[in-house]
Amino acid sequence: MGDSTITKVYLDNAATTPLLPEVLEAMLPYFGEAFGNPSCLHDWGDRAREAIDAARDQVAQLIGAAPEEIMFTGSGTESNNLAIKGLALAQQNKGKHVVTSAIEHFSVLHSARTLEKWGFELTEVPVDRYGVVDPEDVRRSIRKDTVLVSVMHANSEVGTIEPIAEIARVTREKGVVFHTDAVATAGTIPVDVRELGVDSLSLAGNQFYGPKGVGALWVRKGVRLIPLLDGGVQEGGRRAGTENVPGIVGLGKAAELAARHMVTRIEHVNHLRDRLLIELPARVERMVVTGHTEHRLPGNASFCVEFIEGESVLMMLNSRGIAVTSGSACTSKALKASHVLLAMGLPHELAQGSILFSVGIANTDEEIDYVVDAMPSIVDRLRQMSPLYSKFTRTSKGGKHAGL
Amino acid sequence: MGDSTITKVYLDNAATTPLLPEVLEAMLPYFGEAFGNPSCLHDWGDRAREAIDAARDQVAQLIGAAPEEIMFTGSGTESNNLAIKGLALAQQNKGKHVVTSAIEHFSVLHSARTLEKWGFELTEVPVDRYGVVDPEDVRRSIRKDTVLVSVMHANSEVGTIEPIAEIARVTREKGVVFHTDAVATAGTIPVDVRELGVDSLSLAGNQFYGPKGVGALWVRKGVRLIPLLDGGVQEGGRRAGTENVPGIVGLGKAAELAARHMVTRIEHVNHLRDRLLIELPARVERMVVTGHTEHRLPGNASFCVEFIEGESVLMMLNSRGIAVTSGSACTSKALKASHVLLAMGLPHELAQGSILFSVGIANTDEEIDYVVDAMPSIVDRLRQMSPLYSKFTRTSKGGKHAGL
Repeated sequence: MGDSTITKVYLDNAATTPLLPEVLEAMLPYFGEAFGNPSCLHDWGDRAREAIDAARDQVAQLIGAAPEEIMFTGSGTESNNLAIKGLALAQQNKGKHVVTSAIEHFSVLHSARTLEKWGFELTEVPVDRYGVVDPEDVRRSIRKDTVLVSVMHANSEVGTIEPIAEIARVTREKGVVFHTDAVATAGTIPVDVRELGVDSLSLAGNQFYGPKGVGALWVRKGVRLIPLLDGGVQEGGRRAGTENVPGIVGLGKAAELAARHMVTRIEHVNHLRDRLLIELPARVERMVVTGHTEHRLPGNASFCVEFIEGESVLMMLNSRGIAVTSGSACTSKALKASHVLLAMGLPHELAQGSILFSVGIANTDEEIDYVVDAMPSIVDRLRQMSPLYSKFTRTSKGGKHAGL
Repeated sequence: MGDSTITKVYLDNAATTPLLPEVLEAMLPYFGEAFGNPSCLHDWGDRAREAIDAARDQVAQLIGAAPEEIMFTGSGTESNNLAIKGLALAQQNKGKHVVTSAIEHFSVLHSARTLEKWGFELTEVPVDRYGVVDPEDVRRSIRKDTVLVSVMHANSEVGTIEPIAEIARVTREKGVVFHTDAVATAGTIPVDVRELGVDSLSLAGNQFYGPKGVGALWVRKGVRLIPLLDGGVQEGGRRAGTENVPGIVGLGKAAELAARHMVTRIEHVNHLRDRLLIELPARVERMVVTGHTEHRLPGNASFCVEFIEGESVLMMLNSRGIAVTSGSACTSKALKASHVLLAMGLPHELAQGSILFSVGIANTDEEIDYVVDAMPSIVDRLRQMSPLYSKFTRTSKGGKHAGL
């Protein structure tokens, strides 16, 4: 690697992905002469409305939905808030109990906590050491007054893909509305709302090379939802506010490209991710893989490095031009151990050493070489400074996966 | 006008304004190599975070606020929802009564209606025939359990600017939190939160040549607010979700340009607007100005045309390439008479003939010529078809302002 010209390696695609040039190209007219407000009845409005309709078709196609079931929002977080609060409030006469998994994104978990303040009860079903929810745990958690179950399609921190179709069989049998947060999966792996059997599904454009500031929520026709944002009649009266036309157009284009190139994208990032999953623990002592080994997001290479803080690894990698995350993007400033890893039963001191490399379609083998070369010396240096490490050298034991 | 080459005239700047090329220019890097997630701790995150901080400064400067008091949202509608619901819920232990004016935007009125469903009581203070709220009416409406007053800075349908500073003197005296919806004014006329004396103020980027999909809410330091969107710790924990970095950068740039060019912009649109306000009623029989003649938004030329539907005028103007609105953008598809005009005491049949020309900085004298030339024949043709008109010809009376 001595003659390498690599200086910047972005391996934080779970936090956000770069926008594809084709997506920006599709958006640009709507920053230009096609700037109209879709609610207006004149030609400028018509053109903007037609663009939104086309994007709605593209997003619907990506997830096997009907276009009229798609609502555009301002983020995956808004989609999850709208789903959790909107679906629960719409059914509160039936009951006030909701179920989530323990490893949901905070936009789901904290929305559920808000429901608790509004008089709802919340059950968090556990996960196993690989981060997998057991559908039977969901079954046991459902009560007569349960009105909503929410389990994410995949966890972006550890990459584990959940058995959503199996959970949906339980919720359908019990007659309970089932939302899945598919922010980590929609546009990345095949997602079909009918095959999954869910009632509601959220996604975000910036997770698959589309723009920030736009998300979508799919809700099965006939399922009631109380809006979060009141005002005008946009999005069928379920999400008021002037539509972010360029953002929506970008989300649509990104969805179209994701559907078209999904297979080759998955192959590409899987290959690079597997290199990280295999080569890093082979080179770095006491660096273990977290999450499920098989049912795993294509780009996700998540680890815990024992006896050092993930934050320190992040900082050292950054000084070499490499971008990664410790914990999730939304909490990385909080310097707390990930609730996901703790729910998987990892001890606190191991969870603090979490580090996530998330591979994207723009990454290359040369970049992976660069990262694999950089890691051992970084970890060595940090361990020299760590009081925990000298303790470890006296009590060493083996194991390459955190679940072992 | 025989040799005019004008074929398209956009006079619907109240619905949304075209994006300035300089604003798009400022946004483009954040659709490109500076695509990072501001919550991330590496260089990509740093660059995005710095951009947001700079935009926060720009928006703060526009309205005389401290940067840390500015929250970015997804729209003016979201800002109003967050203010009305968030400020009321934060104080519900103190009381459950809120006050709005009768002519608020639906994002305020419908949020207040949602509060009613949550057990709050709502008082809507009336307006006079010019759409002006009397501060003494606000005083009379405030009770011991009043926790929030919301009166808009200006009404975009009829252009009337409200006596916000006077109302704020009342609310401060009474110790009640005061929100103002400044979506129609911020970036258009001078807005200074300290001079206005309010506690909370909302604005939207697409109202002053910035992008759609981004708004802001200013809340005075120390005033409590319950978030609408739960999740990560973005925006000081008060608005979760990955930030729309390019949108926020665009809003900041638009704010900077608005502050710098405000005086010349106002002169330009005032001149063109005054031409419409004077020349149209001079040419078109029974076409009356609505809203306040003096305390009026620069670009607003709103009318009611008697004996015909505003929608029909809109359609006919559109066929000549002219974009206008009848009623507000968010309700124009609803074909109902504007709640604003009805609250001003206009009879239903007159309110149905509402038509709004909203002038922007890109409009020209030649365009106004074109519109002034087009209107009389359009109205004539429509009146030929109207059964109401033949009745009118038997009962004609004078008057050039709807308030007369």
